[in-house]
Parts: sequence; structure tokens; C-alpha cells
Amino acid sequence: MTNTSSASSVASDILTPNMVTKNQLFLYADNGYDSLVVRYLLAEKNLPYHLSYLSSERPEDLSDLNPYGTLPILIHADIILYEINIIFEYLEERHPHHKLLPESPQQRATTRQLAWRIQKDWLSLGRKLLLHPDSFDQPSALHAKKQLADSLTTLAPLFEHKPFFMSDKLGWCDILLVPLLWQLQEKNLPLKPHLVRPLLNYQERMFQRESFQASLQVS
Amino acid sequence: MTNTSSASSVASDILTPNMVTKNQLFLYADNGYDSLVVRYLLAEKNLPYHLSYLSSERPEDLSDLNPYGTLPILIHADIILYEINIIFEYLEERHPHHKLLPESPQQRATTRQLAWRIQKDWLSLGRKLLLHPDSFDQPSALHAKKQLADSLTTLAPLFEHKPFFMSDKLGWCDILLVPLLWQLQEKNLPLKPHLVRPLLNYQERMFQRESFQASLQVS
Repeated sequence: MTNTSSASSVASDILTPNMVTKNQLFLYADNGYDSLVVRYLLAEKNLPYHLSYLSSERPEDLSDLNPYGTLPILIHADIILYEINIIFEYLEERHPHHKLLPESPQQRATTRQLAWRIQKDWLSLGRKLLLHPDSFDQPSALHAKKQLADSLTTLAPLFEHKPFFMSDKLGWCDILLVPLLWQLQEKNLPLKPHLVRPLLNYQERMFQRESFQASLQVS
Repeated sequence: MTNTSSASSVASDILTPNMVTKNQLFLYADNGYDSLVVRYLLAEKNLPYHLSYLSSERPEDLSDLNPYGTLPILIHADIILYEINIIFEYLEERHPHHKLLPESPQQRATTRQLAWRIQKDWLSLGRKLLLHPDSFDQPSALHAKKQLADSLTTLAPLFEHKPFFMSDKLGWCDILLVPLLWQLQEKNLPLKPHLVRPLLNYQERMFQRESFQASLQVS
């Protein structure tokens, strides 16, 4: 993995990924959840990429790449992708080593539905806690914190019997979960350790993975 | 396609898809947008299925199949699916005839991203207009109606040069768009025909397809 760009050099290379060879993966990322998911995904798939890390400034030209103005943005050959599920499916098809979906269509559908539920039930609440201070809504965040803690407590046993999320193999659900649990650490969710022990064991184990640690490095 | 079940017989067979042979597709659907999408998808893929059409009543046991209590629900062999994108990916993998995604990973990612944008930009507004009268919010609907009409007017030229949505072949984007345009017909969007002619031509052409007409039949 090659990292690049002091933030000040970003504006100049934002629309010149020509400097990158045609087949190289090029990623614009920040410190948000979605960026961490894609970086962790790339790390687990062991794919090298050129990283342009944007700390706070957003070059104006970014909207030429992504009309929604969000990060991350993944560029590869002629395509520009900016939604995590679509980036995942693309990398899974394009780089079938280190597969993160099972083999059979039935199992793949089941895993995709679990991943959808993680996003619908946990991530949607987590996003309210992880919002930028400018858009942070205190009452809504407090409510989300309580709901999320309740749900994680109820479902903590799901993390008990397998090394990965409901699976013997690392999969797409783990790639979504680990960055969320990592970023929620400093939000002080009201979790009672004796009630969520399997969840805590899972996250401690996953946080230590070399691939996850690598995805946290920005320079 | 075999249709079944007067609404009154639904409660009795809701949890006995054993009556259906193991390899048959079984669909619970209502008159909502998501149900129509899956029925149109099944029709274009020319897949026979057993339909249980629920008009207004919802058997209590439905939540045993889908914790979110929504329709449609597709059952096949041992799996139960209830999200349209996941149902689509499953049927696309399981029944690769009548493919609705292109061949190459790049083109597939581009099509998936277009489908995601249709859902994010148009469907999210359309849903506000298509809500059940009980949850209908008049000011929000009026605002959505104006926004949707503006966006469709701006983007009407996208429907001009190809027989299908930005493509020479029928694809997943069409499966999402046609049911939406169909259901929006009676919402009187403030569209000026001379400004959206390509869109109107597209929808007239698509509404007449035998497959789409078949997906509208409930008995």
C-alpha cells in the first residue's frame, strides 16, 4: 500500500489520477466510517492502493468525481465508485482471492441480508453518534445511544460461538462491524461488560488484526 | 406463473410453504412498490412462482418470516429474503438466463451505482408520495412532488437515445424505474409534456411490455 499526499497537495492531484497507472486502485478517504470500511476491506483483500487522505479540507473538484460530495471515492481504470456496498461487490468480483462472501447463491444472499440488517439496525444508529459536531443532534444522539446499547446487549450472544460474525470465516459483515465498533469506542455506550462479554471479546480480537491496524494508518 | 390464495386463505398457509415444492419460488406480495418490483423482476426473468397476494390484512405470523414486517417476502428452498436489491442479486446469480446486469465487473459496478442513485434520488422522493394514506404527510409530499418533477425534467434527456435506461439492453435500472413511473401516474406530478417527452415515450413503451402487464395481474 502506498500512501500519498500531504493534504496541501490534494487539490493539485484531485483530477489527475493519470499520475497513477491505469490499473492501480486510487482512494480518496477521510477519517469517517465509510472510508475506514473501504480501507479495511482493501487491507483484508490484500490489495495495494494509492491513498489520498483528506483530513478536513474538501477540494472543490471533488464533486466532479462524486455528485454527492461524500467520501470515500474509489477510482479504478475508468470507473468511479462512492457507495460502500457497490465498492465491495466490485472488489469481490474483480479480485476473487480473499473472498468475503460464501460460495453458494443461497449463502451469499443470507450474508448480504445480514450485512443489510447490520446497516439498517446498528449502523443507522451509529451514524447519529458519529456525526460531525456541526450536525450533531444531542437528543437524537442520546436516544440512538440507548437504542444501540440495548440492541447490542440483546444480540451479544451472536458473537459467542464463532470466531467471526456468525461464521467460521471472515466476511463482509465483519468488514462493516469492526470499523463501527472501533469508532463507537469513544462514544461511551452504556454497555454492561458482563452482559456483552462475547461482543467485547470479538472486538478485542478483531481490533488486533494486522489488516485492521494497517487500515488505521494514514501516513 | 401460478397465482394463488384468495386473501382469506393466506392466514392458513402463511407458515406452511411445505405445500410448495422445495425448489419453487414462493412470494408474499401486496400492491406496494417493492412488491411490484419483485413481481416485474420475476416476470422479466421468466421465472414461475407461487404468489400469495395480501390485499390489506397482514397475518400475524408474517413477522416470523420477516422481522421488519414488510412485503414482499421471497421464499426459496431454505432462505427467506425481503430486501429488493438482495432478492435481485440472488435471482441474478441463481438464474443467469435473462441477465439484468452486464458482463464485466466494471460495467456491473456502473449499473449497480446507477440503480443505487435511482433509489437514492428518485425512489426516496417517490416513496413519500406513495405512502399509505395513514402515514401520508401533506407538506412533505408536496415538497417531494416538486423536487421529483424538477429532477425528472432535468434528466429526461437520459431516456432519449437508447431503448432502455441508458442501455441497449433491459437491465436492473429498468426493473426499478418502470414500477415507480407506473405508480406515480396517478400522483399528478407537475411535468410539462414537451419538456419530458423522452421520459413519457420510455414509460409508454415499457408499460406495454407483456412482462410488465403480467406483473400487474393479481389473479
